[in-house]
Amino acid sequence: MNANQIKRVAIVGGTHGNEFIGVYLIKKFARFPNSIERDTFETMTLLANPKAFAARRRYIDRDLNRCFSRQDLANLQLANYEDIQAKAIAQLLGPKENPQVDAIIDLHSTTANMGLTVILPDEHPFNLRLAAYLTTIDPLVKVYCWSQPRQDSSYLRSLCQFGCVIEVGPIAQGTVSATLFQQTERLIHATLDYLDAFNRGQALSIPSEIAIYRGLKTIDYPRDSSGELQAMIHPQLQLKDYQPLNPGEPMLLTFDGETIVYQGRSTVFPVFINEAAYYEKGIAMCLTEKHQVKIIRNS
Amino acid sequence: MNANQIKRVAIVGGTHGNEFIGVYLIKKFARFPNSIERDTFETMTLLANPKAFAARRRYIDRDLNRCFSRQDLANLQLANYEDIQAKAIAQLLGPKENPQVDAIIDLHSTTANMGLTVILPDEHPFNLRLAAYLTTIDPLVKVYCWSQPRQDSSYLRSLCQFGCVIEVGPIAQGTVSATLFQQTERLIHATLDYLDAFNRGQALSIPSEIAIYRGLKTIDYPRDSSGELQAMIHPQLQLKDYQPLNPGEPMLLTFDGETIVYQGRSTVFPVFINEAAYYEKGIAMCLTEKHQVKIIRNS
Repeated sequence: MNANQIKRVAIVGGTHGNEFIGVYLIKKFARFPNSIERDTFETMTLLANPKAFAARRRYIDRDLNRCFSRQDLANLQLANYEDIQAKAIAQLLGPKENPQVDAIIDLHSTTANMGLTVILPDEHPFNLRLAAYLTTIDPLVKVYCWSQPRQDSSYLRSLCQFGCVIEVGPIAQGTVSATLFQQTERLIHATLDYLDAFNRGQALSIPSEIAIYRGLKTIDYPRDSSGELQAMIHPQLQLKDYQPLNPGEPMLLTFDGETIVYQGRSTVFPVFINEAAYYEKGIAMCLTEKHQVKIIRNS
Repeated sequence: MNANQIKRVAIVGGTHGNEFIGVYLIKKFARFPNSIERDTFETMTLLANPKAFAARRRYIDRDLNRCFSRQDLANLQLANYEDIQAKAIAQLLGPKENPQVDAIIDLHSTTANMGLTVILPDEHPFNLRLAAYLTTIDPLVKVYCWSQPRQDSSYLRSLCQFGCVIEVGPIAQGTVSATLFQQTERLIHATLDYLDAFNRGQALSIPSEIAIYRGLKTIDYPRDSSGELQAMIHPQLQLKDYQPLNPGEPMLLTFDGETIVYQGRSTVFPVFINEAAYYEKGIAMCLTEKHQVKIIRNS
């Protein structure tokens, strides 16, 4: 990638209608458009799921942030609200093979204690450098990489190659936290500054390596034959996102009071522990491995 | 009230479908009915809003816990799901003038940092003694009194005169916290033990006075002409339920970063700060006054 290639950037909020921080940031940027303007590119904002926001729900018919696979976008038989909305958004920002934006900043929040998480779709050097820069802005920033093949990815962020998800928590769905609001806003401005500096060929100071938490697999709650929950996150693991979980350590607690320990062979670092929206997806937490990754300078 | 008058007790969970602690406690009690049996009365359990629980939402059409006024219960024109469900519950537990249960324990949870709150419908000596006993079970217990005239009250708990709401938090809607689950379970057992001791004429040890937080009024977020939020809870007030808020201290923060201070004349103690379900009700927090109340012994 050469300098001056970022021409349009999209800031997206409210992909999930009950994640209010993104929604109210988008509304704020609409009132203060100057604040997100940069000289070297155009910035647009998008409130992705206004109907779900109006209903104070994650989605109306189906999780919008799982509607962006190429196959689903091409399937006109998928015609519920979010499937139609995804096609409209892809028409505005995409298509994947030739997108109209060069970077997407997608704003999310979680009931898990994930602090300020930058989620990368892959470890492309450009995305890694952006994440490395953001770790210098706030010591709470963690970098999580959950890869899906881009062409098949069902996430909104897969519409273009560059950018990141900013995922902040813990925060209850349907609420705003002033602290997380301000921290997220700061990371957005830092991202825009970074892209602007990139376009100008300016080298911002970034660390030579960073810790990346690479997604391994998800763990579900134990369930009975009808799918009903039989256990909850163990008190010792609650709020312990990004902390080491060793084999034999408590992971879940049944409603009857029995501890279920982690039975893997090596230490993992769980994230999205007790995320409300993941109960229905069969996910109690996502396990990651922690790696130190060298940051390759702009070539 | 004379001894041996508690004949039937109802434990109610899931009045709000996304408050999971009550739901999963009711499901546990269904599997272990012995645990909630006491010799001197009958205990029944009720999952109040199963359809909202299945949808992982507070309610389907209307907040069930606002459907129990005498007027609404008598109005057969009110025929949406929760209004019909309220009439069915009133038929099972009520009617208010001659209820089939003598005490109701209604289980709720909140996104506010209310710890273990016992909400009393009034300061009847019987209810006060119960609350005083519960403060001896767990030091986190706080006693909040939000009075509505019982005949006009729209809360489920108004179906009979005695009992309490157990309101625990902070917890995101649609999640379970193992710690709060176990603490709530302990308070339920203590309540049953207390009612059993009352029936037997046994005097349990209770303090001679307790602090009561009496509800004064509610405060809304500033809103624009279309009703849209203009501010959030100030970071200094977030999670500070039951702590003193003095005139001139920060209460809200606008999205533009301006602090709004509390403008009352005297110190108050806010509760339900940043409760997710109250955004749509126009409530950012409830202000209370703290009073020391003497506990009158059984006559």
